[in-house]
Amino acid sequence: MTYCVAAAVAEGIVFASDSRTTAGVDDVAVFSKMHVFEMPGERVVIALSAGNLATSQSVMALLRSRDAQGVNAAATLFDVATLVGQTLREVMQRDAPSLESAKIDPGCDFIVGGQVNGETPRLFHVYAQGNFIEATPDTPYFQLGETKYGKPILERILTRDTTLDDAAKCLLVSFDATLRSDLSVGMPIDLLAYEKGCLRVTRRKRIAEGDEYFREMTRSWAGGLRQAFAGLSNVNW
Amino acid sequence: MTYCVAAAVAEGIVFASDSRTTAGVDDVAVFSKMHVFEMPGERVVIALSAGNLATSQSVMALLRSRDAQGVNAAATLFDVATLVGQTLREVMQRDAPSLESAKIDPGCDFIVGGQVNGETPRLFHVYAQGNFIEATPDTPYFQLGETKYGKPILERILTRDTTLDDAAKCLLVSFDATLRSDLSVGMPIDLLAYEKGCLRVTRRKRIAEGDEYFREMTRSWAGGLRQAFAGLSNVNW
Repeated sequence: MTYCVAAAVAEGIVFASDSRTTAGVDDVAVFSKMHVFEMPGERVVIALSAGNLATSQSVMALLRSRDAQGVNAAATLFDVATLVGQTLREVMQRDAPSLESAKIDPGCDFIVGGQVNGETPRLFHVYAQGNFIEATPDTPYFQLGETKYGKPILERILTRDTTLDDAAKCLLVSFDATLRSDLSVGMPIDLLAYEKGCLRVTRRKRIAEGDEYFREMTRSWAGGLRQAFAGLSNVNW
Repeated sequence: MTYCVAAAVAEGIVFASDSRTTAGVDDVAVFSKMHVFEMPGERVVIALSAGNLATSQSVMALLRSRDAQGVNAAATLFDVATLVGQTLREVMQRDAPSLESAKIDPGCDFIVGGQVNGETPRLFHVYAQGNFIEATPDTPYFQLGETKYGKPILERILTRDTTLDDAAKCLLVSFDATLRSDLSVGMPIDLLAYEKGCLRVTRRKRIAEGDEYFREMTRSWAGGLRQAFAGLSNVNW
């Protein structure tokens, strides 16, 4: 599977993605699912991908090869999302018939977010059909792939007013729950916090197996959960 | 959907099930998914069901009508699980062709546990095909239906040595996460803690919307989580 999540808060947007790809449990590999387009001072666009790797790679490769007329020319992040959707449809038109005749799902989804100079940061979910929705304060985050294990903590913590630091921690706690339960989601985790108005990438981190911060954070979280659990009253039968 | 979960610990077995059935979001009803067979001093058998309601009701009705030669005559809980599986196959043989021709899934799963005098408590998962597996100290719990939202807390807390009281609380915390995320899982929750060697039902509770204990427990849990979260260090970019 895959796990990608991004949250738009008042201070910016945080993105996180795993990097395990599987073609069956006997064929596991590492591919980053975080794609960064950066024109410092002008725009930052992050795309997270889930689904068919050949499709998502083709979409990203075509977007990069057309950078100057594409992602880097778009006037708004809405236009970037439209472009990702169009390029996805182009690749699907090329590849889907062959894959579907072999009963392979050609589809992939993207989370696309960032900021274009002149706009506020925005976050979109582009579906496999190329259409898309935008995050709002009511639902400030999007997930792709193995979404369920890591959702409860997002629902409890994330709001529009969550700080960028807290949003980053919250995504990592969500990853912790997911990594423990689904072997098809795997490290390293790519984590990026985009600060509103910055128009360049300043906080980015790859968290690999054995990362000291992540180990300490998950240990502290596990201890906190045990303490919260110990504080619950027994059932009044 | 449905959410059922049962955990076998050293002191006994705890069972919990929701009671929402849905035939589309515009057709919601309340049916208990917890079925209790009790011969005080002799045996206690609890079955939790998930899947096609007509199938699971037929299985339970047939088992009840044959009580004296069936559940109440079985020498072991293994024999009870076998009987549930056989009765399920009987109902499937009768109903599955008609349902499958209408593209309706006729299947249902059961969690079956309890104690027969002379044995230690045992817990089984009976699949829709009538075969079954038994819980062991390595994996002391089974879930049916909407399993993912509520799994992380089970994985963190439940072991063979968890007390019966803590296991009951753990199942309710697991329910809390599930109820918040999946509207097709609904109250009331049927909760039952079977104490090893008791051979009768002593702790059983139906938790309905607005239940004071459950409200206080979820409030305390939410506060504990926020506190645990507040204790995490920021990401070291």
